[in-house]
Amino acid sequence: MRAALESPGLARAMGAHSPLSARLAEEAGFDVIWSSGLEISAAAGVPDANILAMPECLEAAAGLADAVELPVLADCDSGFGNVNNVIHMVRTYERRGLAGVCIEDKQFPKLNSFIEGNQDLAPLDDFAGKIRAATEVREDLVVVARLEALISGKGMDEALRRAEVYERAGADALLIHSKLTEPDEVFAFRAAYTGDLPVIVVPTTYNQVTVAELQERGFAMAIYANHALRSSLRAMRETLVKIMQDGTTLHVEEDLASLKEIFDLQRVPQMLERQAHYEALGRDLAEAAR
Amino acid sequence: MRAALESPGLARAMGAHSPLSARLAEEAGFDVIWSSGLEISAAAGVPDANILAMPECLEAAAGLADAVELPVLADCDSGFGNVNNVIHMVRTYERRGLAGVCIEDKQFPKLNSFIEGNQDLAPLDDFAGKIRAATEVREDLVVVARLEALISGKGMDEALRRAEVYERAGADALLIHSKLTEPDEVFAFRAAYTGDLPVIVVPTTYNQVTVAELQERGFAMAIYANHALRSSLRAMRETLVKIMQDGTTLHVEEDLASLKEIFDLQRVPQMLERQAHYEALGRDLAEAAR
Amino acid sequence: MRAALESPGLARAMGAHSPLSARLAEEAGFDVIWSSGLEISAAAGVPDANILAMPECLEAAAGLADAVELPVLADCDSGFGNVNNVIHMVRTYERRGLAGVCIEDKQFPKLNSFIEGNQDLAPLDDFAGKIRAATEVREDLVVVARLEALISGKGMDEALRRAEVYERAGADALLIHSKLTEPDEVFAFRAAYTGDLPVIVVPTTYNQVTVAELQERGFAMAIYANHALRSSLRAMRETLVKIMQDGTTLHVEEDLASLKEIFDLQRVPQMLERQAHYEALGRDLAEAAR
Amino acid sequence: MRAALESPGLARAMGAHSPLSARLAEEAGFDVIWSSGLEISAAAGVPDANILAMPECLEAAAGLADAVELPVLADCDSGFGNVNNVIHMVRTYERRGLAGVCIEDKQFPKLNSFIEGNQDLAPLDDFAGKIRAATEVREDLVVVARLEALISGKGMDEALRRAEVYERAGADALLIHSKLTEPDEVFAFRAAYTGDLPVIVVPTTYNQVTVAELQERGFAMAIYANHALRSSLRAMRETLVKIMQDGTTLHVEEDLASLKEIFDLQRVPQMLERQAHYEALGRDLAEAAR
Repeated sequence: MRAALESPGLARAMGAHSPLSARLAEEAGFDVIWSSGLEISAAAGVPDANILAMPECLEAAAGLADAVELPVLADCDSGFGNVNNVIHMVRTYERRGLAGVCIEDKQFPKLNSFIEGNQDLAPLDDFAGKIRAATEVREDLVVVARLEALISGKGMDEALRRAEVYERAGADALLIHSKLTEPDEVFAFRAAYTGDLPVIVVPTTYNQVTVAELQERGFAMAIYANHALRSSLRAMRETLVKIMQDGTTLHVEEDLASLKEIFDLQRVPQMLERQAHYEALGRDLAEAAR
Repeated sequence: MRAALESPGLARAMGAHSPLSARLAEEAGFDVIWSSGLEISAAAGVPDANILAMPECLEAAAGLADAVELPVLADCDSGFGNVNNVIHMVRTYERRGLAGVCIEDKQFPKLNSFIEGNQDLAPLDDFAGKIRAATEVREDLVVVARLEALISGKGMDEALRRAEVYERAGADALLIHSKLTEPDEVFAFRAAYTGDLPVIVVPTTYNQVTVAELQERGFAMAIYANHALRSSLRAMRETLVKIMQDGTTLHVEEDLASLKEIFDLQRVPQMLERQAHYEALGRDLAEAAR
Repeated sequence: MRAALESPGLARAMGAHSPLSARLAEEAGFDVIWSSGLEISAAAGVPDANILAMPECLEAAAGLADAVELPVLADCDSGFGNVNNVIHMVRTYERRGLAGVCIEDKQFPKLNSFIEGNQDLAPLDDFAGKIRAATEVREDLVVVARLEALISGKGMDEALRRAEVYERAGADALLIHSKLTEPDEVFAFRAAYTGDLPVIVVPTTYNQVTVAELQERGFAMAIYANHALRSSLRAMRETLVKIMQDGTTLHVEEDLASLKEIFDLQRVPQMLERQAHYEALGRDLAEAAR
Repeated sequence: MRAALESPGLARAMGAHSPLSARLAEEAGFDVIWSSGLEISAAAGVPDANILAMPECLEAAAGLADAVELPVLADCDSGFGNVNNVIHMVRTYERRGLAGVCIEDKQFPKLNSFIEGNQDLAPLDDFAGKIRAATEVREDLVVVARLEALISGKGMDEALRRAEVYERAGADALLIHSKLTEPDEVFAFRAAYTGDLPVIVVPTTYNQVTVAELQERGFAMAIYANHALRSSLRAMRETLVKIMQDGTTLHVEEDLASLKEIFDLQRVPQMLERQAHYEALGRDLAEAAR
C-alpha cells in the first residue's frame, strides 16, 4: 500500500463489493482494491449513510483482503463515531488484514457525497485528533485523510487549511474529493497544496480525465470507486428482464459467464487437487501403520 | 411460497447473491427468490462445497428476505450435518424470515452438482429422517426435497423411489436436478412420478427449454439458479479490463448504471423523506413543550 | 412485554449477557430479560461506550430472544445514530424477535451512566423525533424512552418536561435512571409524573429498595441490569485464582456446576431424544420402500 | 504457544467462553487460553455437538485472542467437515490471530466426549490426511491432534497406533482425552508413548490430579477446559434465585463484583485517558492552524 502510494507512477485502485469483484480487479491489473462504502451498501440494499455499521463494513472489507494478494484500502466513512471508535476501528481493521483505512472529515452518520443533504464538515480539532490517534495506535496500517471541504461547499481555502493540519496530525495520504464534472477543482488543489503527502482522487463525475493527465498533474492514486457495481447492476437488470420476457435463458447465454469461469474464480480446480493430494497422503500414512 | 408452488401456472424463481440482485429480480417480475448456494459462494470467492457454513448461508439468505417482498427459498445444500443440524437449521431459517428451505440428498460436505467429483447420495433412511424432522419442527416453512439421483448416476428408478419416500416423509415439494443439455431426463421424471407433490426444475444446462413447455409438462416452478451472478461476472470482467486498457472510465460509462439508479435501489429518496418528516415532527413536539 | 408493563404488579427484568444467563433468569422466575449493554460489552471486554456497534448488540439480544420464552427488552443505547439509524434499528430488532427496545436521550456515542464523563443530553427535538419515528415504523415492538436528565445533572424539571414530550411522541413506557444510593430521586419523579405511561427503574445503586416498595410507589417494572454478570465475574475470578494456587481443581469442585447441569441447560437430553426418534422414523420410511 | 508446549515445566491452559473470562484467566497467571467448545456452546445455549458452526466457533475464539496477550488454542472439534474444510479452517484461524488449533479424530458432527452417544472414531487415513494438510498449509499455527480412542472405547493400542501416525503426519502435539475419574489411563498412555511430541491432558473427571504429578509424569500441558463456565453458572443460578426470593439485591451485593471491577476489566480508565489525550492534541493542532 505504501509502495503503491509512493511509487513514481499513478497507482490505480478499483472499488469492490465482493471477493469475486476484487478478484476480477486483481486479474485486470489494478494495484489496489478499494473497499467501497457505496458499493457495499448498495449490494446490501441500504443507503450509503452509515446504515451499515462498523462490523458490517469491516466484514466486507476483510472479505476482500482475504480473497486477493493486492492491498485493500478500506472506506471507513467518518470513522464510525468519536476518537474512541476510531481507535477501536484502526486496531480492528489492521488485525483483520487491511492495508489502509480512509476516514473523511464529515460527521457521523455521514451521507454519500453525491447526495444532496447534510454534508457538514467535522470540527477541525475533532478530526485532527482522530487522525493523530489513528496514526499513533496503528502498527503499519496506512491512514488516509479524506477532505470533504469541496463537497460541503466550504471551498478551496478550507480544503488547503485542513490538508495542512491533517498532514501535521500524521496522515499518510490525502484524498481530495469533488463532485464536479470537470477535474479543474482537484487540479487546482493539487497545484496549490505544497505539502509532502501523496494525493488521491476519485474520478467518478469527471470521468473524462485520464491516467496520463492525473500522473502528469502529480497525483499518487486514482480510485475508480463504483464502476464494478455499476456495471454489474446494469448487466443484471437487463439480463433478468430479458429472461422474464423470453421465457427462456437461451438468448441471454452469450452475455453470461460460463459455469467454468465461475468455478475457476472460486478456485475449484485447486481445491479438488489439494483434496486428492491429501486424501492420498492420508491413505499412505494409514497404510504404513498396519 | 406455497401459493407460488400450488398455483396452476409455472412459478419462476431467480437466483440472487445480494439484496441488490434480489431487488432487481423482484423488479423484473419473478415470483420467488432463490438464495443460491452457487451464487453466494461464488460472490464470496470460495468453492460451492460447504466451505461457507450454515451461519454464512443463513446471513446471505436472510439478507435477501429482508430486502424484498417476495418469498425467498433458501438453498441449504445437504442440511449442514445430521438430523440435529437440520432441526437447528429449520428453526433458525424460519425465525429469520425465509419462506422455504431446500435440502438435497447428498452427503456433507456436498459438492456443486455440475462439478466432477464425489456426488454420492445420502443413505435413504438418513435423508428421509431429515425430511420428516424438518417438516415436523417447522411452523409454516416450506420444505423442498432435492433429488440428486440423476446427478449421481443412480438413475431414474432411484430418483422415483426416493421421490416416493420423501413424499411420505412429508416434503412439500420435490426438486429434480439434471445436468444434461436436453430436458428429456426431467421430462421423463415428471411423466413417471405419480405422486401429488409440486415438482421444481433448474434449467441451467438445458437452457433451450421454455416456460410454456415446462408448464405444459406439469412442472410447478423453474429456478434460474445462477444467471444474475453470471451476467454480473461477465460485465464486471469486461468493464474492469476496459478501464485498465483505456486509462479512463469515459468509454465504459454507457454500459454502467447511473448513480441515480443505485441511489433509487438503495431507497435513498425514501430515507431522506422520512428523515425530514421525523425531524420536523421532533421540532414540533419540542416546540410545544416550551 | 406489554402485558408485563401493564399488569398491576411490578414486573421484574433480569439483565443477561448470554443465552445461558437468560435461561437461568427464566428458570428463576423473572418476567422479562434485559439485554444489557453493560453486561454484553463487559463480556466482550470493551467499554460500554458504543464500542460495540448495532449489529453486535443486535446479535447478542437476538441470541437471548432465541433462547427463552420470556420477552426480551433490548438496551439500544442512544439509538446508534440519527433518526435513520433508529428506523433501521427498530425494523431490524423487531424482525429478529425482540419484544422491546429502550433508547436513552443521550448523544452518540454514549457513555455508561455510572462513569464520570460526557453525559450530555440529546437535543429534545432530536430525541422526540426518534421516539415518534420508532413508534410509527414498528409493528408491535415496545418502545421505551429512557430519561437521563438526572444522570446528566439537568435535574427533575428537565426529566419531567422530557417525560411529557416523549409521551406525546408516542413512547410506550418511560425509564427513569438515577445513580444515587438512595431511591428518593426516582420516587420523587414517580410522584411528580402525572402522565399515563408505565415507569421503569433500574435499582443498581439504590440496592436496598424492595419490590414491595417499588410496587407501592407505582412503578411498573424494575430492571436488575448487571447482577448476573457481576456474580459470574466474582465467581470466575476466585475460582481461577484458586485453581492456579492449588495446582488442582479438586478443591473448587464444590463451587462448580456439574457437567450434567450444563448439559441440561444446553438441552442435550432433548436433542438426543429427537435424534433417536427421527433416525428411527427414517429407517421405517426407508424400510417401507423396499 | 510453541514455547508453552516445549518449555520444561507443565503449561497450564484455562478454558474461556468470553473475552472477559479470558482476561480473568490471564490475570490469574495461566499460560494459555483454551477456546473451549463446551463452554462456548453452553454460553450460547446449544449442545456441544457442532450445532455451532465454524464461523461461530471462529468468532468466539478470535474474540478471546483479541482480548488477551496470551496465546489462544482453539478447540476445533473434528475439523468441521472434510480435508477442504480443515484447510479453510486452518487458514482462517491463523489469519484471525489464533496461536493453535486442536482437532479430534471423531466424525462430523461430533458429540461432546462426556455424553453417551455416537463417539465413533474417524477413519485413520481420513484424519491423518487432515493433519498433514493442516500442518502444510499453516504458516506458524500450532496443530494439536486430539486422540479420542479412549473415549470411544477403542482402547490403548488404538490410541498409541494413532499417536504414531499423527506424529508422522506432522502434528505438533497430541492431546490424550479420558473420561475416567482416575488418571491411570492417561498416565499409562504417557508411559507407553515413545514418540517426541508434547502430550496434553484435560483433567476434568480425574480432578484430584495435581500439576506436580502431571509434570513428573512428563506431560507438557494441562487444560482446565470448563471450570470458568461452571463456576459462573453456579454463581449466577444462586444469585438470580436469591434476588427473586429476597425481592431486593441488597443481600447478594457481597457476592458480586463491583461496577469498578467491571469497568477496569473493560479498560474504561485507559479509554478515557486516551480520549482526553487525543482530544487535547486535536485542539492544539486546530489552534496552530488559525
